[in-house]
Amino acid sequence: MRVAVIRHAHFNAAHRLFNPAWSDEKNRQVFGKCSNPNYHGHNYNLEVRVTGPIDRDTGYVIDIGMLAGLIRTEVEDRFDHKNLNLDTEEFKHLIPSGENIVVVIYNLLRAKLDHKYDLKVRLYETERNIFEYPVD
Amino acid sequence: MRVAVIRHAHFNAAHRLFNPAWSDEKNRQVFGKCSNPNYHGHNYNLEVRVTGPIDRDTGYVIDIGMLAGLIRTEVEDRFDHKNLNLDTEEFKHLIPSGENIVVVIYNLLRAKLDHKYDLKVRLYETERNIFEYPVD
Amino acid sequence: MRVAVIRHAHFNAAHRLFNPAWSDEKNRQVFGKCSNPNYHGHNYNLEVRVTGPIDRDTGYVIDIGMLAGLIRTEVEDRFDHKNLNLDTEEFKHLIPSGENIVVVIYNLLRAKLDHKYDLKVRLYETERNIFEYPVD
Amino acid sequence: MRVAVIRHAHFNAAHRLFNPAWSDEKNRQVFGKCSNPNYHGHNYNLEVRVTGPIDRDTGYVIDIGMLAGLIRTEVEDRFDHKNLNLDTEEFKHLIPSGENIVVVIYNLLRAKLDHKYDLKVRLYETERNIFEYPVD
Amino acid sequence: MRVAVIRHAHFNAAHRLFNPAWSDEKNRQVFGKCSNPNYHGHNYNLEVRVTGPIDRDTGYVIDIGMLAGLIRTEVEDRFDHKNLNLDTEEFKHLIPSGENIVVVIYNLLRAKLDHKYDLKVRLYETERNIFEYPVD
Amino acid sequence: MRVAVIRHAHFNAAHRLFNPAWSDEKNRQVFGKCSNPNYHGHNYNLEVRVTGPIDRDTGYVIDIGMLAGLIRTEVEDRFDHKNLNLDTEEFKHLIPSGENIVVVIYNLLRAKLDHKYDLKVRLYETERNIFEYPVD
Repeated sequence: MRVAVIRHAHFNAAHRLFNPAWSDEKNRQVFGKCSNPNYHGHNYNLEVRVTGPIDRDTGYVIDIGMLAGLIRTEVEDRFDHKNLNLDTEEFKHLIPSGENIVVVIYNLLRAKLDHKYDLKVRLYETERNIFEYPVD
Repeated sequence: MRVAVIRHAHFNAAHRLFNPAWSDEKNRQVFGKCSNPNYHGHNYNLEVRVTGPIDRDTGYVIDIGMLAGLIRTEVEDRFDHKNLNLDTEEFKHLIPSGENIVVVIYNLLRAKLDHKYDLKVRLYETERNIFEYPVD
Repeated sequence: MRVAVIRHAHFNAAHRLFNPAWSDEKNRQVFGKCSNPNYHGHNYNLEVRVTGPIDRDTGYVIDIGMLAGLIRTEVEDRFDHKNLNLDTEEFKHLIPSGENIVVVIYNLLRAKLDHKYDLKVRLYETERNIFEYPVD
Repeated sequence: MRVAVIRHAHFNAAHRLFNPAWSDEKNRQVFGKCSNPNYHGHNYNLEVRVTGPIDRDTGYVIDIGMLAGLIRTEVEDRFDHKNLNLDTEEFKHLIPSGENIVVVIYNLLRAKLDHKYDLKVRLYETERNIFEYPVD
Repeated sequence: MRVAVIRHAHFNAAHRLFNPAWSDEKNRQVFGKCSNPNYHGHNYNLEVRVTGPIDRDTGYVIDIGMLAGLIRTEVEDRFDHKNLNLDTEEFKHLIPSGENIVVVIYNLLRAKLDHKYDLKVRLYETERNIFEYPVD
Repeated sequence: MRVAVIRHAHFNAAHRLFNPAWSDEKNRQVFGKCSNPNYHGHNYNLEVRVTGPIDRDTGYVIDIGMLAGLIRTEVEDRFDHKNLNLDTEEFKHLIPSGENIVVVIYNLLRAKLDHKYDLKVRLYETERNIFEYPVD
């Protein structure tokens, strides 16, 4: 009997879409105002979905307090109130698009999560732009 | 590495559930107040989910501005501030139930979207009544 | 010790902004797509705020079940799944703009509410367009 | 052409996480403040997702009014304004964790729903802690 | 130049509406299912609004981190995962209706807040039932 | 008969809390992670509330499309996808705290709005931190 447990989290960060292999003009053309040289920012909302069997003794799939702590350590402490392009290892050489951010967060959490669990991550860059990984 | 990108949109429309093959009484019986002859209406909220590979140069699955433009042209311009039964080709001979509307919107967007993408559409008729197509 | 109690409600209706003293062209010019002759519609969300003293025996300002019943009778039964222009007495000769609707709802509820209470009504025509009456 | 229909519902209940096979101390250790002997409580929000073919005559997968009635009878009447541990048969010998509650609600609805439909249930214990069953 | 700063918080608690001066039957009559002897519960959401002058050096009316800490100490630590009727001093002899809870929370915070600030508290017992104190 | 009309808008921006009259250490002490030298960012949500008399011919207090256009020109075009500290005149010598931003936005809109209208602005820096100006 496998159940999915979903936990919300959030972090606020600055970023800029920029491909260093391209000219400034090409960056502006492709990324528009998202390429503003002085950065802009978002309140990123996160939904972390962990699927696994129910433990009979606790009624838990996973201790949600433990899961919340894992998200804090691996994601919030790393990205909250940061400039993704300048202040993080993960996006020094990777464009911090919503798509890339959701994959990076998945990999960070996957590395720390017991293999009996399946994992899926949903990232809200804004209320209208959302990213999910992996896909079924 | 496939990621899902979800974009929100909305339109406000009038509609009426009515099967012309049935008597007015049968329509009232089956559809209740949703069959009111002078129509009622909704703020329809839409979630369009496009799944595809991340482009290495842009970090994008799809340019969300382009996707928002496609939804505007194919869905919002067509249905916003319209009477679905009287003002649209799509529902002249099809009951504008949430189920039928979500399939119609899927077909409109699918026809314009590159085949490398998977597509799923979720329609909120109200905050409490939601429709999704296709299903896994 | 006066406390405000706020109760949510909702109704779905069709409407059209139209001034019969004007030509169709002038209506289109002023009201744009909101004047579509075949109507469009909304999920109207309502917040009814009743302010009064706390009753010592119950801890209540007002029995919220009673307040919900009053809103059902006076507002929801009257406007839900209706065409405001065609199906209601209130908007036969009054443009059903958000501003006018919120005043009409206030008057309907005010007439049925004990004078010891203050009343304020907030109407969400969409998530982005909101109306409130009376104002301080 | 199968479409998913999702209906929201809610109930307010008290509960306590407690394993009678364990000492009070072990319960406190594992469940923390969720094991408070005098209970705490939640506004549980529910999303019931029914998937099936569209009926050509009605445009419906299922009559949502009928579905709402089923949820009221099977879930809301049973659990609303109740103490899950003391007032319900279902959780007399089962820890009322979010995981167990979502499985119980699935089983209650599944037993009453035509076999042509697929069913999935999502339970919001809070805005941040969510449970879903079954999983794909 | 006075600005209002609003901070959200939340706590989950069990409660029961019960007037000990009345018979069980009278309690049931007046409070209905809210008087269930074994309690029910809610996710209470709180909005604390502090109004004051902007400090020129910081651009702050109040340090929101400090305000969040005050709400944690005075409200969340006191009421979260508690049975309001049994586990708290405040509601041992006061019916824990939304109206009374919002006044109690106001008084707890007011006692700790500098007199240069105005204070208002809004309590969401559910998404549909809201209480505010003081009123203008 | 005066009614309040509220319109939502939003912009995404980077910012940093920093007082140039202070040492870096003092800035860190007072503003914590909000003073990160490389900036962080937010999705700012805005509620603009315009109060005035209902025009009898239109049923409008103000044409909401016109109001939305004013907010776009005066606020969104100015601040969206910008670094508030570096890219704007308004915050070159003013700390871009939520309190200061809401006052600046009020002043920008007030200067363009007919004097028959009252104006109030509410700014959501996050879902949990909100600012309002002026206060009653």
